[in-house]
Amino acid sequence: MTCDFLTLANAGVQKLQPYQPGKPVSELARELGLEEASIVKLASNENPLGPSPVVLDAIRAEFNDLTRYPDGSGYQLKQTLARKLGVEPETITLGNGSNDVLDLLVRAWVAPGDEVIFSEHAFAVYPISTLAASGVPVQVPAVDYGHDLDAMATAVTDKTRIIFIANPNNPTGTWLLHSAIDAFLAKIPEHVLVVLDEAYCEYIEEPEYPNGLQWLNQYPNLVVTRTFSKIYGLAGLRIGFSVSSQEIAGVLNRVRQPFNVNSLALAAAEKALDDDEYVKRSRDLNRKGLADLEQGLKALGLDFIPSLGNFITFDTGSSGDKVFQELLKLGVIVRPITGYGLPRHLRVSVGTESENRRFLEALPAALKSAAGGSVVK
Amino acid sequence: MTCDFLTLANAGVQKLQPYQPGKPVSELARELGLEEASIVKLASNENPLGPSPVVLDAIRAEFNDLTRYPDGSGYQLKQTLARKLGVEPETITLGNGSNDVLDLLVRAWVAPGDEVIFSEHAFAVYPISTLAASGVPVQVPAVDYGHDLDAMATAVTDKTRIIFIANPNNPTGTWLLHSAIDAFLAKIPEHVLVVLDEAYCEYIEEPEYPNGLQWLNQYPNLVVTRTFSKIYGLAGLRIGFSVSSQEIAGVLNRVRQPFNVNSLALAAAEKALDDDEYVKRSRDLNRKGLADLEQGLKALGLDFIPSLGNFITFDTGSSGDKVFQELLKLGVIVRPITGYGLPRHLRVSVGTESENRRFLEALPAALKSAAGGSVVK
Repeated sequence: MTCDFLTLANAGVQKLQPYQPGKPVSELARELGLEEASIVKLASNENPLGPSPVVLDAIRAEFNDLTRYPDGSGYQLKQTLARKLGVEPETITLGNGSNDVLDLLVRAWVAPGDEVIFSEHAFAVYPISTLAASGVPVQVPAVDYGHDLDAMATAVTDKTRIIFIANPNNPTGTWLLHSAIDAFLAKIPEHVLVVLDEAYCEYIEEPEYPNGLQWLNQYPNLVVTRTFSKIYGLAGLRIGFSVSSQEIAGVLNRVRQPFNVNSLALAAAEKALDDDEYVKRSRDLNRKGLADLEQGLKALGLDFIPSLGNFITFDTGSSGDKVFQELLKLGVIVRPITGYGLPRHLRVSVGTESENRRFLEALPAALKSAAGGSVVK
Repeated sequence: MTCDFLTLANAGVQKLQPYQPGKPVSELARELGLEEASIVKLASNENPLGPSPVVLDAIRAEFNDLTRYPDGSGYQLKQTLARKLGVEPETITLGNGSNDVLDLLVRAWVAPGDEVIFSEHAFAVYPISTLAASGVPVQVPAVDYGHDLDAMATAVTDKTRIIFIANPNNPTGTWLLHSAIDAFLAKIPEHVLVVLDEAYCEYIEEPEYPNGLQWLNQYPNLVVTRTFSKIYGLAGLRIGFSVSSQEIAGVLNRVRQPFNVNSLALAAAEKALDDDEYVKRSRDLNRKGLADLEQGLKALGLDFIPSLGNFITFDTGSSGDKVFQELLKLGVIVRPITGYGLPRHLRVSVGTESENRRFLEALPAALKSAAGGSVVK
């Protein structure tokens, strides 16, 4: 038998790419000869407001218990979430980011050879978790950068276990209307899990954008996932959750590590949920920032994909990777999305007003350098 | 096809028990009519010193970046760990607790039907992770409450992928000497992963207790796991790690969620590593506390299992669960270990001097009530 531990790994794992870490901002600053504080990071759809004082107080209040394991059931947070969302605490599964919950779903229901359906240009975690379980990723071509729900429904086979739908989708920002999801759910066999990933839902004010929780009673195969990493500003702490039937939550609870969520995240999330002022400020800043970015991109004659998230994806007209590199030299970090099948596009997160301006000011020079092929060292 | 999502779940997942959350101490206090502050919790092998000021400073220094995702590569912490342990940073895999790393190992190398070997009375995560991957848990009977390495080596078949060895073992506190592990490693086929779980190693001063890292160059199938939850006092933050060949670390890096460790844990762990004063105080307190507990148990005529951990397991002479309940009524929480195949035993963590005394003072009454079968309400 071979002793090559990659060859010995599970079949799907061998197909995965190792994670390529980005450089820490400090390292980047040194390489580029820039002041670290002058670098604008609009790369990871984070909340640009910085942490809420309410959250920091909640963390400090947990300090004495730091040597203790977290409450493995997340009792208090689930109570607060249940009240806020109008669901039962037993329907909630907490995760180390919603990423963790997405992964738990695959681990619980996808055996080697089982199929998982998702859209082209959708969140990278869907195929990664699927391959880690040696499942078969079934990517359905997008329409206008968004989910083609009809084609996704047609892709269901007797091997299908899970369908992931991101609404809105990251990195394209596209969204699905109430009527579309309603019709889709009615079509999917009841033994196939439909996971509605609503990581960005709290930003959205569009009336036809649906709250997925409304369908939970009607469709016991539905799971809705959400996160505290976006509007609630807790990306560094790692906490997200799903809402589902109690039965599904019970199965996830078997696979879940008992202390998968740290105690500071539990405490912070509970307070963040009721921090209406911070959420409102975040939403307002995002609405204004999205409009500014759209206007700036338009003024440069660049096509962008209309977005309901806290980011916007635009067509550089050339190579996204090249423009990314040129922006980097100017101290602006955005996200190239070649890996999402969009090599001409870049995704920029909505920052503060001044961060958005820095990006829009740097962009023309970056586009020019990239187009000219000149590599400024 | 059924629509029962438990029946639809993977075979091994169906065999898992859902996690049964313990009651929060606040809830327990209310039920028992006790002051929360008066309850002594010696149930989870936590560091009784409370958090180090050095660690709290490190956490506060991260506050501004809380809305940012953590450094997915854990660059700084790996540098510090590598220097401290005398290994290369590329050999380190960081986890959301060492639990996470144990789980990643199973996910990467155990396919349905593959076998995983561990000892009777060993850490519960080994069979749980194995079943979650639909692997076959192979439990080898213990000898004198400890690992029977000869029998474990004999249990290897062509289906064996991983052998877990806890040194010292939780919950029994038993340990394996240098010579025993050395001989064992020489016997195991080189394609079978041997995972040495050293969660409690920093407490140990016994000269014949071996540091597993010494064998990494000789045995490329060896993985050593450690944690910040014990002597470093960071259980609430969730952080642990493994050291292995770069090849194995590379595979784990494929399965790992890119942001599996939160940013406060990364910062805290880095500082905790160099916090020699806290580690020394913790070790001293533990040495003294273990001796006090041993002496107290002896004085009560109770057999205990000699331990090198921050806990000690003793024979109640009757039902561990009953004595646990009686201790609870007296405001002392310890750990029943019926689930570990030790229904007469209880595990008590080493606390502060006064906590240990509270436990030893409460124990005779609890033993008496349990023996008498009288249930004091």
